[in-house]
Amino acid sequence: MAYSPLIQELLDALRCLPGVGPRSAQRIALHLLQRDRGGGERLARALEAAMKRVGRCTQCRLPTEETVCELCRNDKREQSVLCVVESPSDVFALEQATDYGGRYFVLLGRLSPLDGIGPADVGLDELERQLAGGEIREVILAVSPTVEGEATARYVADIAAEQGVSCSRIAHGVPVGGELEFVDSGTLSHAFAGRRSFR
Amino acid sequence: MAYSPLIQELLDALRCLPGVGPRSAQRIALHLLQRDRGGGERLARALEAAMKRVGRCTQCRLPTEETVCELCRNDKREQSVLCVVESPSDVFALEQATDYGGRYFVLLGRLSPLDGIGPADVGLDELERQLAGGEIREVILAVSPTVEGEATARYVADIAAEQGVSCSRIAHGVPVGGELEFVDSGTLSHAFAGRRSFR
Ligand SMILES: [Zn+2]
Ligand SMILES: [Zn+2]
Repeated sequence: MAYSPLIQELLDALRCLPGVGPRSAQRIALHLLQRDRGGGERLARALEAAMKRVGRCTQCRLPTEETVCELCRNDKREQSVLCVVESPSDVFALEQATDYGGRYFVLLGRLSPLDGIGPADVGLDELERQLAGGEIREVILAVSPTVEGEATARYVADIAAEQGVSCSRIAHGVPVGGELEFVDSGTLSHAFAGRRSFR
Repeated sequence: MAYSPLIQELLDALRCLPGVGPRSAQRIALHLLQRDRGGGERLARALEAAMKRVGRCTQCRLPTEETVCELCRNDKREQSVLCVVESPSDVFALEQATDYGGRYFVLLGRLSPLDGIGPADVGLDELERQLAGGEIREVILAVSPTVEGEATARYVADIAAEQGVSCSRIAHGVPVGGELEFVDSGTLSHAFAGRRSFR
């Protein structure tokens, strides 16, 4: 015996969610069908709209459905300082933990030549263009202290030096090998304030 | 600063999934946006179709988009035996663990007069109609050994007795206070085979 075709397709489709196996797919599907159809329909509409219409901010690469994101449009933020992070969630973690008021650049990944992930794949070509533009005077590296993060930091420090842009990196205090987004606010705030020149 | 409207709506909508808080909503949304748009679109379509079109089997109350489910349409199954369970996942657990070949009746809940959940709310009126129909000779109770399950078992045993239908209940071995769907196959198979007359 089997679930009906529409339910089976829902069970299969739920497997695209990170951490969802056959058992939790069943639990989610039955929960929505029996107790929250409205929630399920809302999620369907939200998913469809987001998957089709969300792109990247042309300036900072944050995911957004707008050409330029709200953060980049905010001219009260310091335009000459650029904080380089690996993922959108790092931007939100830094915004919550620090009083940083400059701009961001989101790599959406880490340089990893061994895996065939080169500079252009994580937006480092676009970063280089922005640094060459002359408006940016300082780059703050807030990449994870992992092997790939180190390679990325090295690469950004080099292109910043070529353009005469000063470059600092947030202080250790972030556990080595750890993911930035899972660090508590206090540690992250401390690490950010204690950043040191990096070249 | 905030996520863009479409992303924020996706984060909010994801909260309808059981066990998903703000942090995992963010993780799921960014995963789909950055790595699996196809999966997200497929899930949107599957959710929409299932939420709008899945109803209940008119015979056994299993969720299905068909009027009568595949299991009830299967005339190779013994039509005179009816196994009463609390939830659709119990049907799947029993089908995997046992060689039971009769029909099912899914209550979709448990009798709980203190919470205002009466017989009609869990389909016991429909069950009574089916027992009065004369085709069913045996009812097997596979409800959980919880307080509400006991009340449900008692109720079903009474209406079965009124109609002269024999009634048995799957054996203990299922941990008392436990949920049927989380029991391992071996225990469940044993408990099912060791069912005893219940009146
Ligand atoms: Zn932006
Ligand atoms: Zn059915």
